[in-house]
Amino acid sequence: MKFSTYSYTKSREAFARAFRVIPSGIYGHQGPSEGCYVPNDAFPLFSSRAKGSHFWDLDGNDYIDYMCAYGPNVLGYGDEDVDAAALEQLKKEDCVTIPSSIMVDFAELLVDTVASADWAFFAKNGTDVTTLAVLTARAATQRKKIVLFNGYYHGAAPWAQKLDYPGILEEEVKNNLYVEFNDYPALEKLFNDHKGEIAGLIAQPYLQANFRDNLLPDEGYWQKVRKLCDDHGVVLVIDDVRAGFRLDLAGSDHYFGFKADLICFCKALANGYNVSALCGRESLKDVVSSITYTGSYWMSAVPFAAGIACIKKLKALNAPKLFEELGAKLMDGFKAAAANNGFHLVVSGPASLFYLRLADDNSLMIHQQWIAECVKRGIFLTSHHNHFINAALTDEDINRSIEIAEDAFHALKKNGIVPGA
Amino acid sequence: MKFSTYSYTKSREAFARAFRVIPSGIYGHQGPSEGCYVPNDAFPLFSSRAKGSHFWDLDGNDYIDYMCAYGPNVLGYGDEDVDAAALEQLKKEDCVTIPSSIMVDFAELLVDTVASADWAFFAKNGTDVTTLAVLTARAATQRKKIVLFNGYYHGAAPWAQKLDYPGILEEEVKNNLYVEFNDYPALEKLFNDHKGEIAGLIAQPYLQANFRDNLLPDEGYWQKVRKLCDDHGVVLVIDDVRAGFRLDLAGSDHYFGFKADLICFCKALANGYNVSALCGRESLKDVVSSITYTGSYWMSAVPFAAGIACIKKLKALNAPKLFEELGAKLMDGFKAAAANNGFHLVVSGPASLFYLRLADDNSLMIHQQWIAECVKRGIFLTSHHNHFINAALTDEDINRSIEIAEDAFHALKKNGIVPGA
Repeated sequence: MKFSTYSYTKSREAFARAFRVIPSGIYGHQGPSEGCYVPNDAFPLFSSRAKGSHFWDLDGNDYIDYMCAYGPNVLGYGDEDVDAAALEQLKKEDCVTIPSSIMVDFAELLVDTVASADWAFFAKNGTDVTTLAVLTARAATQRKKIVLFNGYYHGAAPWAQKLDYPGILEEEVKNNLYVEFNDYPALEKLFNDHKGEIAGLIAQPYLQANFRDNLLPDEGYWQKVRKLCDDHGVVLVIDDVRAGFRLDLAGSDHYFGFKADLICFCKALANGYNVSALCGRESLKDVVSSITYTGSYWMSAVPFAAGIACIKKLKALNAPKLFEELGAKLMDGFKAAAANNGFHLVVSGPASLFYLRLADDNSLMIHQQWIAECVKRGIFLTSHHNHFINAALTDEDINRSIEIAEDAFHALKKNGIVPGA
Repeated sequence: MKFSTYSYTKSREAFARAFRVIPSGIYGHQGPSEGCYVPNDAFPLFSSRAKGSHFWDLDGNDYIDYMCAYGPNVLGYGDEDVDAAALEQLKKEDCVTIPSSIMVDFAELLVDTVASADWAFFAKNGTDVTTLAVLTARAATQRKKIVLFNGYYHGAAPWAQKLDYPGILEEEVKNNLYVEFNDYPALEKLFNDHKGEIAGLIAQPYLQANFRDNLLPDEGYWQKVRKLCDDHGVVLVIDDVRAGFRLDLAGSDHYFGFKADLICFCKALANGYNVSALCGRESLKDVVSSITYTGSYWMSAVPFAAGIACIKKLKALNAPKLFEELGAKLMDGFKAAAANNGFHLVVSGPASLFYLRLADDNSLMIHQQWIAECVKRGIFLTSHHNHFINAALTDEDINRSIEIAEDAFHALKKNGIVPGA
């Protein structure tokens, strides 16, 4: 093996402390109870430092990071331009009784940048804005039902969870209707079966499910869906929390050639500073205004300053093109590394948000083992979630990542793990 | 008149811009559509700078601020110790793929500080943690119903809204039961009428309603409620988002001599840095662990560093006692200023979170006019919401505030406004 493997002594010690005072120790998508971190002992659990495309764990191990904080790291950790703008704002004010007018500057920038945005409403979580979108669709139509695509993720609010999840009531999800993405006849039938009952359709711009190849829209699919929503008076909501500003700075709906009524942003909006945004069309602005919706930190000024600096830098870099190129180069290298060793790596989704799966591995165990060998050698990937490219990735990072991926395949072979086993 | 009155030209210009690109221009509790900002034209709309106990609006007008960003400003704006801790952390890392172990340090500090806390779960909004508390109560009991006190506010999630609010479905609030605070027989009857159906009771530690005098618990009330919850297997949730760390660093339940099962914190937790926390008893930790609940920024390190510095400084200052003393001095001055001019000012709630109402004014118009005259002279109050004391308030601030309050009563008299009119 060319690369030595990491150990996680300090991470494990910190996790033992965490487990005593935090439910699960680390919860949610960053925690070891999440299905993406298997085999569990291959992954570090706490970080100590992050810069550019790298982070270092508590044991000092260095990772080229392809999870990017599950999205927020879009320009690189500790981006100097974004941090400088944030610190300049912090010297003046952050969370104050009445907002800073920098909120207006940020809203104007989003309206200028995002094709389907006539206005912007700011909050903190992706969940805050997907929920506001659903309330808006209901209030605008005076209808109850929301259509979602199987494999959806729209945040952690009860309405967006599943009936068998702890604490969720039947009442909270009974107005959800589910259908397969890209199956237009099924969607059309659903709309006809529930004529006059559907308030909104909420969807990611392409299928970004976990444990499943990501799926781009078929040619003409979104255009037909757009027309169907218009014909039925249904509010079309694009949840661009994950792909927003990575595929297209004008919105992922723009990337796929249609216009959403409402579009939700969060992760890539401010390079890790805490802000989310619902944008939408003029015709829905009064409805949004009528909804009771607020939070203690929602008008904090520092994240707005960071967001302005982030979007401007993404524009200056023509970042979506850069992400696509970096992602494509990495994926070519990963696929070749697999093929060189007799494996078949299936890559799905856009290259800038690549999803990985090893073919001929129905148990998923070989795939998980390969990911684990990669992580232990210094590239942070997860097994069953899409990944993220950031603008600080260098050619050296990518070349080293490909070498590590290849070394990880060698490790599989050395351990007698072969495709189709 | 001793004090000249402010004008808001630049605030109004910025609001005209805001109104074009943001629903309502400014939404929620910070916006002019909120009932607390009447008469509307007496209030500035945008801030430009904040430091200590003051902020300055876009026209450069200086305010002694008694809203404290609706709570988060607890040590004073731009507190140097909190900002230094935040900046030191920012140099290392903030929002990363795996959390910083400073999350564990913060959880340990809360467990050491808060009497009813055996663990802490971090999120971003107060709403995030009140909702998690409700999900936990349901999951722990396998029951559906939640008891709330009339005049409650537990955030902006659909379950915490009212049926006649736009976008809210009957299904989302049908499992809520409502009862009057301090009416123990009514609560006992409600529990008996719904035996075996009630998952949780969620309550602020005293009644903090808007448009209504705040109401402290009757002697022995909480102790009887605690026992009733135990007898019926109901999870007792204290929503300490508003009063938390202002009344008692060990929790407002501790202040009133009982122990909650779950307690929700947000506003005062990190002096404006963006974090909230659900704390609770060991017996509910596994249930919380089972719930699907996460957000993109929930493990960002900078707010944890700020929170640690904030709690430590609140302890060093013995802040709740300081807030009580500062608030009491201010309230004595305000009441005397009213009496000197033939008005009767009714103060309710704890002095550190004082609520104001002028007596003999059923229309509320005289009260609103007095508040407006105060604001236009440089003390930021609102008409029908409780206020907040922060640790940066000086004796000079308080003396000046009392002088302004008196001058505002003079202005009322000069305009022929008299009590009981």
